[in-house]
Amino acid sequence: MSRYLHLANRLKEHIQMGYFAPGDRMPSVRQLAAEHGVSISTVQEAYRVLEQDGLVEAKAKSGYFVALPKERIARPKESKPPQRPMDVSLWEDVLAMLMGHGVEAVCEFQHAMPDMTSSTLKPLLKNIYELNRHRPQDGMSYGHVQGELGLRQQLARLTATTGCQLDPEDFVVTSGCQEALSVCLRAVAESGDVIAVESPGFYGAMQAIKAANLKALEIPTDSRDGMSIEALKLAIDQWPVKAILVTPTVNNPQGYVMPLHKKQALYQLAREYDIAIIEDDIYGDIAFEYPRPKTIKSFDEDGRVLLCSSFSKTLAPGFRVGWIAPGRYRDKVTHIKYVSSSMCPTLPQLAIGNFIRQGGYDRHLRTMRQTYRKARDAMLKAIEQYFPQGTRVSFPEGGFILWVELPEQYDATKLAEQAKEQGIILAPGQMFSATGKYRNCLRFNYIDRDAATRLKALAALGEIFASMGPVKP
Amino acid sequence: MSRYLHLANRLKEHIQMGYFAPGDRMPSVRQLAAEHGVSISTVQEAYRVLEQDGLVEAKAKSGYFVALPKERIARPKESKPPQRPMDVSLWEDVLAMLMGHGVEAVCEFQHAMPDMTSSTLKPLLKNIYELNRHRPQDGMSYGHVQGELGLRQQLARLTATTGCQLDPEDFVVTSGCQEALSVCLRAVAESGDVIAVESPGFYGAMQAIKAANLKALEIPTDSRDGMSIEALKLAIDQWPVKAILVTPTVNNPQGYVMPLHKKQALYQLAREYDIAIIEDDIYGDIAFEYPRPKTIKSFDEDGRVLLCSSFSKTLAPGFRVGWIAPGRYRDKVTHIKYVSSSMCPTLPQLAIGNFIRQGGYDRHLRTMRQTYRKARDAMLKAIEQYFPQGTRVSFPEGGFILWVELPEQYDATKLAEQAKEQGIILAPGQMFSATGKYRNCLRFNYIDRDAATRLKALAALGEIFASMGPVKP
Ligand SMILES: Cc1ncc(COP(=O)(O)O)c(C=O)c1O
Ligand SMILES: Cc1ncc(COP(=O)(O)O)c(C=O)c1O
Repeated sequence: MSRYLHLANRLKEHIQMGYFAPGDRMPSVRQLAAEHGVSISTVQEAYRVLEQDGLVEAKAKSGYFVALPKERIARPKESKPPQRPMDVSLWEDVLAMLMGHGVEAVCEFQHAMPDMTSSTLKPLLKNIYELNRHRPQDGMSYGHVQGELGLRQQLARLTATTGCQLDPEDFVVTSGCQEALSVCLRAVAESGDVIAVESPGFYGAMQAIKAANLKALEIPTDSRDGMSIEALKLAIDQWPVKAILVTPTVNNPQGYVMPLHKKQALYQLAREYDIAIIEDDIYGDIAFEYPRPKTIKSFDEDGRVLLCSSFSKTLAPGFRVGWIAPGRYRDKVTHIKYVSSSMCPTLPQLAIGNFIRQGGYDRHLRTMRQTYRKARDAMLKAIEQYFPQGTRVSFPEGGFILWVELPEQYDATKLAEQAKEQGIILAPGQMFSATGKYRNCLRFNYIDRDAATRLKALAALGEIFASMGPVKP
Repeated sequence: MSRYLHLANRLKEHIQMGYFAPGDRMPSVRQLAAEHGVSISTVQEAYRVLEQDGLVEAKAKSGYFVALPKERIARPKESKPPQRPMDVSLWEDVLAMLMGHGVEAVCEFQHAMPDMTSSTLKPLLKNIYELNRHRPQDGMSYGHVQGELGLRQQLARLTATTGCQLDPEDFVVTSGCQEALSVCLRAVAESGDVIAVESPGFYGAMQAIKAANLKALEIPTDSRDGMSIEALKLAIDQWPVKAILVTPTVNNPQGYVMPLHKKQALYQLAREYDIAIIEDDIYGDIAFEYPRPKTIKSFDEDGRVLLCSSFSKTLAPGFRVGWIAPGRYRDKVTHIKYVSSSMCPTLPQLAIGNFIRQGGYDRHLRTMRQTYRKARDAMLKAIEQYFPQGTRVSFPEGGFILWVELPEQYDATKLAEQAKEQGIILAPGQMFSATGKYRNCLRFNYIDRDAATRLKALAALGEIFASMGPVKP
């Protein structure tokens, strides 16, 4: 990495760790040059990078300042879920969504599938095609119980970019991140145990909690920086929490990235109370900042963090290739993964391993980050234009989904029914709670179909809002 | 189906149901012709089929008799496992086997992988290749939560041959039969519950019992016809058994087919005590008799039987395509399957669906039945020739594995160590018990490598036996 990028990354990290707060004046160019033993122009280049990333702002004559967040629509306020362990319900809603909507859709905002039309995916398809052509027999045997070595080597390399030093034998390949989460839950908790989760949070994780006969304890979560550490501490003091399950880097559904200092605090808290952390990093590689944010796992000194991910959001969900870096739980995780589905199909693993090794993955991510960032900006603008006054919306720092909080009078399920009549498919918010909260909320992807179609669909939603009449105060 | 085949099947069923016992004289040709309203030659053709299948024997001048089993080596006696619920151990042994042996192998008797060299598999590989070439995008999205419809339609057709009337929506596709078993266990039982299993039985099922925090109750099992119904009844009377997990049709490890009347009795017993049955039918389609034996599920009137299977033994395990016909547990099974690993990869499902529809599966099975039967006969002969006196061996009625019981003085683990030095890999029997019994037993496949290599390896084992000196009485 060049000098200026190296410096830019360190400064980014310092900003993210909270060494500099929003609005703070940054050290002068001269000062940094002296401190780091680099040239003035290197520092200037570094600041240019930070400026491009929107992390600092130059003010004429007075230097660089840590940027204040720029938002035009308010963000959802910190959530206030019921502060006690609950049985997860809402499976009927999830199932209904999985089963499909059965209409000729115009625009499907409900799913969380990535853009799979990019030409940067072609080399991956070529790899699969070649493997199937030249080595079909290789796909027929049982593979390695932890996954193909060729893939695990690349996973070790990838996780280095998240701040982790891991070896191929530290990974267990799974059938997607869903299996990863399910296996980890079963490895760290037993029937009746309590799992702390974000609220709103990913319904697949909630349902896995239900299926393992565990209880979900929803923790107040801010749309800006994630789970409240204070609320988490209070909850842990009061309830026998066995594990914390979080998606801190490009959260589903809200898209925030938990700041690094908060990740560290979360790890410290878990350590203090001897609790496991299941860290879902499935969107981590498509955070908009580059290099990507570090994980909670990067702070893990005693193996209590089980890092889970997959290529479902970065490449395509149909390959069903995910993984766990299970830390000290490796033996138990390997056992549960083996009994859960034995080995994973080998050819997709080998193909993805090759694709990463050949540099195709990095190239693809570069393109995707641009695509998604552009799509997000258009989406936010359209929401501002078409959605009712008082609507709040999260500000995704990566990925392709966001969270909309309508004024309380709106019922998202009713809205979804009306929208469906016009072929617009929505995901009502209640699935993202263990207990059916968020009835005025929705999760949207901003990447289905093309930009024009999305815009038209959002305008049509606007009509529906208008037809619902003015919102009573 | 032609008339004589139809008649042959009915007669087979009657023999299997025990209407005629071994040694019984069968009705005369004339009598059957009258009873069934068919011609004399149709009956003669039907008897010819039964004779070829070894089910009846013609005696000059006196007609047809139900064949007596022909064996030259004694079968293992009914097992005597500890008759109480136990925690499953032996994971270390299973893991060691899964991790591989790390030597240059001459012959690998330890695995349970089918012959994947047959040219009858080529049309399947062609299907996969074509799908990957022409519709790679189809493989990239999340598929249907119950599995691809095209495959489920063929599964419905296939299970008709096992005596079941099922529709596509009665199936849930899984990542192999291992996931099927694991999901079913979790659907019917909760932490601490007791599951009745065959002994010896498949280690993957035992380990799934362990991972779900259940207890295994090993039931005495006969190498001729499977789990003892009497012993099962006694066990159910004494312990709170939640489900019976059996592999009654071409059992792993013993290869027996439980007679139809016993399958019916097992179902009746489960019904009487209101217990679920998880029926593992993974080898059912490669039973040597044709049409294949009916399942316990074929008796299921109230949906208490969860039928599990996969293409791992009939086609190849690497595809990881399995399924459940979960009866009345469908909703719970769908939930647990979804949280366990979400959907299964679509292309292998579509390819296998096409292959079945095109008739490729039936053709492949026809070839495999012949291959395996021939290989079994050679294996039994070699065991008779090379193994110590007093060795007992099961008589597989399908598939490609069998169970060897050495005289008690032998330690299978020690034998495996010695054999490994010569590149011969063995599977010691203790993994097939929840609690480490069967230390003088081994499971062998008789299909690894080619016939000559297997024979040489068995001769080499013979040398090892000889070097161990005569067995003390
Ligand atoms: C946060 C999160 N975790 C896990 C998953 C499941 O991922 P996979 O499709 O790889 O099983 C999803 C998919 O929507 C997700 O959004
Ligand atoms: C009896 C039995 N059931 C289930 C399985 C697991 O099958 P799959 O590879 O389809 O997961 C096996 C594999 O060895 C088996 O022998």
